[in-house]
Amino acid sequence: MSPRIRGVLAPVVTPFHADLSPDAERLRRHCEWLVASGVGLAVFGTTSEANSLSVREKMDLLDQLIAAGLPPARMMPGTGCCSITDSIALTAHAVRHGVAGCLMLPPFYYKGVSDEGLYRTFATIIDAVGDKRLRIYLYHIPPVAQVGISHSLIERLLKDFPGVIAGIKDSSGDWANSQRMVEQFASSGFDVFVGSETFLLANLRAGGAGCISATANVQPAAIQHLFLDWQSAGAETAQAKLDTVRAIFQRRPMIATLKQAIAHQRSDPEWTRVRPPLTELDPAAAAELLARMAAIGFSLPDPARTAELAG
Amino acid sequence: MSPRIRGVLAPVVTPFHADLSPDAERLRRHCEWLVASGVGLAVFGTTSEANSLSVREKMDLLDQLIAAGLPPARMMPGTGCCSITDSIALTAHAVRHGVAGCLMLPPFYYKGVSDEGLYRTFATIIDAVGDKRLRIYLYHIPPVAQVGISHSLIERLLKDFPGVIAGIKDSSGDWANSQRMVEQFASSGFDVFVGSETFLLANLRAGGAGCISATANVQPAAIQHLFLDWQSAGAETAQAKLDTVRAIFQRRPMIATLKQAIAHQRSDPEWTRVRPPLTELDPAAAAELLARMAAIGFSLPDPARTAELAG
Repeated sequence: MSPRIRGVLAPVVTPFHADLSPDAERLRRHCEWLVASGVGLAVFGTTSEANSLSVREKMDLLDQLIAAGLPPARMMPGTGCCSITDSIALTAHAVRHGVAGCLMLPPFYYKGVSDEGLYRTFATIIDAVGDKRLRIYLYHIPPVAQVGISHSLIERLLKDFPGVIAGIKDSSGDWANSQRMVEQFASSGFDVFVGSETFLLANLRAGGAGCISATANVQPAAIQHLFLDWQSAGAETAQAKLDTVRAIFQRRPMIATLKQAIAHQRSDPEWTRVRPPLTELDPAAAAELLARMAAIGFSLPDPARTAELAG
Repeated sequence: MSPRIRGVLAPVVTPFHADLSPDAERLRRHCEWLVASGVGLAVFGTTSEANSLSVREKMDLLDQLIAAGLPPARMMPGTGCCSITDSIALTAHAVRHGVAGCLMLPPFYYKGVSDEGLYRTFATIIDAVGDKRLRIYLYHIPPVAQVGISHSLIERLLKDFPGVIAGIKDSSGDWANSQRMVEQFASSGFDVFVGSETFLLANLRAGGAGCISATANVQPAAIQHLFLDWQSAGAETAQAKLDTVRAIFQRRPMIATLKQAIAHQRSDPEWTRVRPPLTELDPAAAAELLARMAAIGFSLPDPARTAELAG
């Protein structure tokens, strides 16, 4: 088996055509830039509007990205759906492509479900996929999914599916929760990714694996630098700089704001489009965003200079 | 166009085989019993574990029910998904079958979305389906979906899509909310269905259209009787009797409890099965349920006597 994926991943934003169909070509170019910037591709995450895409659309996009030469070993596609049949189909498809892992939401429609019910969900998926290459990264994002992943559920899954249950993305926004997961499970080969680069330095110091962060769509190389240099003297300064950029996006509707920033930087208004139920930024909000970015001197790195910046 | 569907509908529970695939044959028999009991079929609702089914599974089940002779004019399938492409595909498929209407959840993954975003969701679906037969019943169930349908959203949709926006299922559990909807919108041809028979009499007195209630899976004829006889002297007594039965189910995990009751009454343990993330009742909870049903003298009407009971 290949080594585990670690470091920084971007939950890649998904561009859309005017008819709201996914724009595979713009997605490919953005993915190429992200990979050249040093970060992995958590396609089909929350930031990707993945839950606004059908299973078929996600499979087709993954096929196209891989056909275009993007490396599955750098991918952790989101494959957890409300329906277990959908999760099985998406996961099996991704594993056949040889992806590094699958980021798996719990089924999120029914609320107040038991850990037993969630355990059966993951166990059924693992059994049905039936592929030794499967590595599951649980996706804990209670502010959105409302259904979370408890520490006792992790413990039970790790015991019964060692090697398959490979880690978690913790998007609780609660560093203490991530820290307890690292302390409790990292020694069992459970890789904790924090859901924001704000906690990256703390996570690496604690023994975590990295971060999977929305804002890696706009400052990938800078986050990757901190991942590579976290033991250097300048790490805290680098962390503070990342936080300043992150704050701009975190205070606004994240997905529309990321797309607005990308559209502006690439002079490509097509990028602003989101699928309902999301809405793009209105002109005033877009202008305010750009003013705020200018005020701190932040701009997306030029794709032409990416190799140098990722250096 | 055929007259609007009114009265009582059951969000039909979905039976599963041992391999967790949907059991079309048991579903057909249950639907036949419900229709013989006088109620309509809101297949693929929350109680149907519809969000634990794939789009393809729902289409196949609908095809099979209609091929078996169940009347589409008595059906209001749930067709609202997180992904707009899924909602369009499911809705178009149901409309082609000539169903009475589609019960449409808002996309429920992203939280805190704007009314503008929800408006665009419904408008995009209506436009893409492009069929004059489409009648949408909005599905307001904030305790589960977390994303609700505001009165101002209803007002805007009704104005722009008269005849298409046909009504709502209000599963807020808040009668005052349903009442305000009736007062504000019933005169525009907006049919308000309450999400529990507990509010049926109040809703009919206010000018609402009926109820779509989980427990119509176990006491269909009795609820239908109240719908037919709501102006009779015995209506309040009938309502109280319905409430006593409803309370047994409402205090327990609804879906597993309904299935346990059906399994017991039909001596068919296959009916207890649920899809993860739900879990069936454990033996102690099942025994307690049966004792509670016996204590109030409630049993599911015998299918053989359905015609007589539905009177």
